[in-house]
Amino acid sequence: MVRAAVMVGPKRPIEIQEFADPVLEDGAVVLRTLFSEVCGTDVHLYHGRLSGVPYPIIPGHVSAGEIEAIEGRVVDVEGKEFGPGDQVTFLDVHETCGRCWYCLVAKATTRCPARKVYGITYSARDGLLGGWSERIYLKPGVKIIRLPEGLSPETYIGGGCGLPTAFHAIERARIRLNDTVVIQGTGPVGLSAVAFARLSGATTIVVTGAPAARLDMARRMSADMVIDIHEQSPEQRLRAIRDVTNGHGADVVIEATGNPAAIPEGLAFTRDDGTYVVVGQYTDCGDVSLNPHRDLNRKHVNLYGCWGSDFSHFYRSIQVMARHQRTFPWHALGETQYSLEQSNEALRDVEELKVIKAIIATQHR
Amino acid sequence: MVRAAVMVGPKRPIEIQEFADPVLEDGAVVLRTLFSEVCGTDVHLYHGRLSGVPYPIIPGHVSAGEIEAIEGRVVDVEGKEFGPGDQVTFLDVHETCGRCWYCLVAKATTRCPARKVYGITYSARDGLLGGWSERIYLKPGVKIIRLPEGLSPETYIGGGCGLPTAFHAIERARIRLNDTVVIQGTGPVGLSAVAFARLSGATTIVVTGAPAARLDMARRMSADMVIDIHEQSPEQRLRAIRDVTNGHGADVVIEATGNPAAIPEGLAFTRDDGTYVVVGQYTDCGDVSLNPHRDLNRKHVNLYGCWGSDFSHFYRSIQVMARHQRTFPWHALGETQYSLEQSNEALRDVEELKVIKAIIATQHR
Amino acid sequence: MVRAAVMVGPKRPIEIQEFADPVLEDGAVVLRTLFSEVCGTDVHLYHGRLSGVPYPIIPGHVSAGEIEAIEGRVVDVEGKEFGPGDQVTFLDVHETCGRCWYCLVAKATTRCPARKVYGITYSARDGLLGGWSERIYLKPGVKIIRLPEGLSPETYIGGGCGLPTAFHAIERARIRLNDTVVIQGTGPVGLSAVAFARLSGATTIVVTGAPAARLDMARRMSADMVIDIHEQSPEQRLRAIRDVTNGHGADVVIEATGNPAAIPEGLAFTRDDGTYVVVGQYTDCGDVSLNPHRDLNRKHVNLYGCWGSDFSHFYRSIQVMARHQRTFPWHALGETQYSLEQSNEALRDVEELKVIKAIIATQHR
Amino acid sequence: MVRAAVMVGPKRPIEIQEFADPVLEDGAVVLRTLFSEVCGTDVHLYHGRLSGVPYPIIPGHVSAGEIEAIEGRVVDVEGKEFGPGDQVTFLDVHETCGRCWYCLVAKATTRCPARKVYGITYSARDGLLGGWSERIYLKPGVKIIRLPEGLSPETYIGGGCGLPTAFHAIERARIRLNDTVVIQGTGPVGLSAVAFARLSGATTIVVTGAPAARLDMARRMSADMVIDIHEQSPEQRLRAIRDVTNGHGADVVIEATGNPAAIPEGLAFTRDDGTYVVVGQYTDCGDVSLNPHRDLNRKHVNLYGCWGSDFSHFYRSIQVMARHQRTFPWHALGETQYSLEQSNEALRDVEELKVIKAIIATQHR
Repeated sequence: MVRAAVMVGPKRPIEIQEFADPVLEDGAVVLRTLFSEVCGTDVHLYHGRLSGVPYPIIPGHVSAGEIEAIEGRVVDVEGKEFGPGDQVTFLDVHETCGRCWYCLVAKATTRCPARKVYGITYSARDGLLGGWSERIYLKPGVKIIRLPEGLSPETYIGGGCGLPTAFHAIERARIRLNDTVVIQGTGPVGLSAVAFARLSGATTIVVTGAPAARLDMARRMSADMVIDIHEQSPEQRLRAIRDVTNGHGADVVIEATGNPAAIPEGLAFTRDDGTYVVVGQYTDCGDVSLNPHRDLNRKHVNLYGCWGSDFSHFYRSIQVMARHQRTFPWHALGETQYSLEQSNEALRDVEELKVIKAIIATQHR
Repeated sequence: MVRAAVMVGPKRPIEIQEFADPVLEDGAVVLRTLFSEVCGTDVHLYHGRLSGVPYPIIPGHVSAGEIEAIEGRVVDVEGKEFGPGDQVTFLDVHETCGRCWYCLVAKATTRCPARKVYGITYSARDGLLGGWSERIYLKPGVKIIRLPEGLSPETYIGGGCGLPTAFHAIERARIRLNDTVVIQGTGPVGLSAVAFARLSGATTIVVTGAPAARLDMARRMSADMVIDIHEQSPEQRLRAIRDVTNGHGADVVIEATGNPAAIPEGLAFTRDDGTYVVVGQYTDCGDVSLNPHRDLNRKHVNLYGCWGSDFSHFYRSIQVMARHQRTFPWHALGETQYSLEQSNEALRDVEELKVIKAIIATQHR
Repeated sequence: MVRAAVMVGPKRPIEIQEFADPVLEDGAVVLRTLFSEVCGTDVHLYHGRLSGVPYPIIPGHVSAGEIEAIEGRVVDVEGKEFGPGDQVTFLDVHETCGRCWYCLVAKATTRCPARKVYGITYSARDGLLGGWSERIYLKPGVKIIRLPEGLSPETYIGGGCGLPTAFHAIERARIRLNDTVVIQGTGPVGLSAVAFARLSGATTIVVTGAPAARLDMARRMSADMVIDIHEQSPEQRLRAIRDVTNGHGADVVIEATGNPAAIPEGLAFTRDDGTYVVVGQYTDCGDVSLNPHRDLNRKHVNLYGCWGSDFSHFYRSIQVMARHQRTFPWHALGETQYSLEQSNEALRDVEELKVIKAIIATQHR
Repeated sequence: MVRAAVMVGPKRPIEIQEFADPVLEDGAVVLRTLFSEVCGTDVHLYHGRLSGVPYPIIPGHVSAGEIEAIEGRVVDVEGKEFGPGDQVTFLDVHETCGRCWYCLVAKATTRCPARKVYGITYSARDGLLGGWSERIYLKPGVKIIRLPEGLSPETYIGGGCGLPTAFHAIERARIRLNDTVVIQGTGPVGLSAVAFARLSGATTIVVTGAPAARLDMARRMSADMVIDIHEQSPEQRLRAIRDVTNGHGADVVIEATGNPAAIPEGLAFTRDDGTYVVVGQYTDCGDVSLNPHRDLNRKHVNLYGCWGSDFSHFYRSIQVMARHQRTFPWHALGETQYSLEQSNEALRDVEELKVIKAIIATQHR
């Protein structure tokens, strides 16, 4: 039997349930879960803010584990076969169809209507399809990555789902050598974005957010300057950005806050003909007002929304983390571990911003 | 003496004034004006909605004329010398400095703080620096273009200032062969954008706007479908766009309305990972509300503001017009001509949408 | 029984052979072939110039047909189900894996090592997997497109395999409104490239090639100027290109010749900071010498190789053809039809440039 | 009087000559030269391999100095006025016209026919227009940059003219996070390109070149692997690149060698759909043979020539150097200093690869 933490419905306590051991189809893999995580989306799931979620679900979309069983021959992207004991992770998004207009003509694969997500849009009735579980069932075709040599599961899960999300946002931002970059938000996406912005050539990185502990972490991720939004007024924040940019505003601003009010502020931070990437509005938190003359037309802005991530972001972000893990303390983002039984507490601590990220250490008791 | 129509201040009637014949500096040119135009910006100038305008001004930013006098040797972009009698036009934007951070590092020359605009930011006190005048004084360095052989000043002025503006917007839109394009707005910018979208490879072009006469003109500019915003509700408009795009929304939407409310509607028209260009918000007409989750982040949108135009847009748009003037009836955009004395009437007719564009035929009496 | 024309090996006459009626797997489709074609690659196949070809093969990679049988539910890219009698074509490239590093990380799907091509890399021993046959067996997952309403199979096959190839080359070229474009080569790829260049905004299009009949066709496809390489020396050709570009050279040059000597000539045609797309070197026809200082570095050139095409090129090019078939006479490219029995003659006529394209009308006798 | 080292003609010894103190036009600046340099182009100048050079010349295109005199008000790109004693450098390229088709329409300003270069295309007869001199006369409009605080002239000149050249090449290369990059060549351009590739997000950087001392410097500039072309055969080199890229080849290859034979080798290093930048062929060193089928078309290559640099490359590269000078030892590239009198020896040492870069310390005796 396999124990898993189940979100039975919105606003109901997480329950530990037992599931039968999975039976493997050809091409399937079973992971002995090592770590999963609690991210902001899990809090939204708990509050029932996402539509179409097939409760009960086993949450946990990004996870790391050890291969326990394989049926048939399963290979990585380079054709190298996986075997029992391999430490791996997998792309939580599955069933991107590869056959529809979005996949084939628009090449907007993260908007494929068929895509499903482990831990979010698969029901617990359909199997061990989420990370808050002792075992995860990887359906045939799920895209698995071997953790690179020297990259521990603990460090990897510190980046977690924020890693490819931030990577995609940085790709959209097309940072150029010597750009000044502002990151709005100090959650896992924003903190990884700081590292990736630095690695992409930013000369100056400013982070706006709160609380102080997260701003400290932003500094450890290489931010040159941090602005505490609880201590500085909007006017002060804007003046500070202008001051470090000779009055021009930042070349690139990346929004990773979850707060609609961040949008007009971020546009004000952006220089004329600068780039603004919106990656923090994954849940509908309401409308916001802006001035199209000042914020869009006259600013000659380049604004990119950024939804989901594909395998390239997932793969590349992990290689980059493995290469630069000693420079950027991703491991420290996920310091606090919780057992499956502590899932409710983990959710609460994330909601209350007590931790940057809660790690579900599924093998702990 | 030179007669010119002068806007002495906001909301005050245009007056005909007489000016001394200009004395030429080295490199300067004097045009005998043939045609200038009244565009939406002139209406805003009349209402005092632009800041920093040095009234009194001679309005008319884009004009066509015949060279009457030249001091020294003045050449075109290919090094060919201009001579008296040449039919020409000129880039209304002048004094882009070529030395500041915007010009040299950001390469956002349309945001150079030093730029000035004929007919808008030059005062009548400083000379014949606007098109509603029998003569225009082209300062040394003003960028002059010979009208290509076969392109009459009448046809050219039909495109007028909307031509390079639309061209720049189309450049920002990066239309690909077979794209579906929606143009919001049926003023001069929108109408030229229809032609340029077609020439850029759009397979299907839909135009939303009013009144009926302008929608007819949109059809003549090659629109496949027009939607009268006075006759169709927002829901009907959205449904119509979805119907012609297999439910996806348009690949590219170009806003050329001047109305903030067009922004959320245009975003709804745009497909996931589609492109939205905002070029119609040249004047501050207030704020608008949108939903950052739905309209930006989840839509994975590519949104480009578009300010001003540079010489390349000006030059290329004129060559394209010359080549394709028989396919697209630019001449018909400027059918109604007014003498200098009729400037007030011309302004009023533009404001009341009685004409698509009012032409100031400066040599008429 | 099904009759097909089989290329049993290099330099051996095509033979008519009979095959058993196909048995359908789930998701498979059988086409009653209407038209297939003979392209330059078929001539190279005949001469044994491609490596790894599993002779005997049924040639014919791009074809049009009528659905005769379907096993299970098969849908198009918009989810609309196919049924018997539908007139369709299909992407000749199949088995692009969607799982390897090229597909997922590099996103260079036309370089996926797993891809196979109907009529080229499938053996006749494995079934009816080429177009010179009364029936074609479409394996499950082959990407099928309904011919748009109003587009006849005869017109479609006039574009044939050159259509998506030219489309991809034009995509690589990123033509901008008002560009001058030179197309080197007057085969099916070059001729479709003329149409697509025009539709993409080229103001002036020059075609270099031979013989005269093909140059006439280039004019019908909208070329502004043609240069017969048999009548004009290299110096004259270069001078002609310079003359129509104010001495600068062309903004974009597209090579579609199959002749290595075209490369240095095409680079000379290209202006400084211009774009050169190489799409005509599908077969190894030897080396060529160029000067890296003059042709690459000092010219600040943008040179793009272009291999294969993906579904988006295939899909979009067909929509564009359907929309613009009355402006560009694609139907005329494939005027000469041959029965299966005349395959040898068709091959010979293509090799000797007697026809622009030979059409295999498989139902003819 | 001002002492300067003059190259009186090809293959003739450099002579020390005395010049009158310059008389300043309005907007001109005189620098007390601190350092200039000897680069590969100076060796080519010495051998008479560049055409149109107006011997006698004062060589030295990139230099650093202290402002000694200013006539009128001269400001930097942010509008801040320069004053005596400021430590500055200047863009060696001057007189880019800003008025021609290349500048305004093609926006290929590094190909403006009017541009002139200090130390190369200005004659000593026209003044102190080269860096191997105690004073340099900066004509009005020459673009001057203040050395950022903390950046010494010694460190700056270590980067020298290779710095903006490498920066431009890296901009053309559009390196993405996690790319593998190969740099061909270990001269000043190649060595700065290593640093910039790292800062742009390369995960793995391989350098090919010689001799051993330069390869050591490449390692210090952050190369992960170096390949000595004197010790490894072409087959070994290619195999080594393939080995570190899972057999694919490098995502990006940058040629900075000056040797035509590097071109086909670099193309072989490049992966399918990878990027190849040619920046090392500044002088015509002859032709080279390549295979257009294998190297261009089938490889689906993206090849960019790269000529010159503009102010943005110059400005940005200096800011980046100031920010990262402790990580990348630019100062060490220019360790060996020579007095004006030792110019002949400096030229010889550069030609014989005894030094990476020879610094002309103009105030030394």
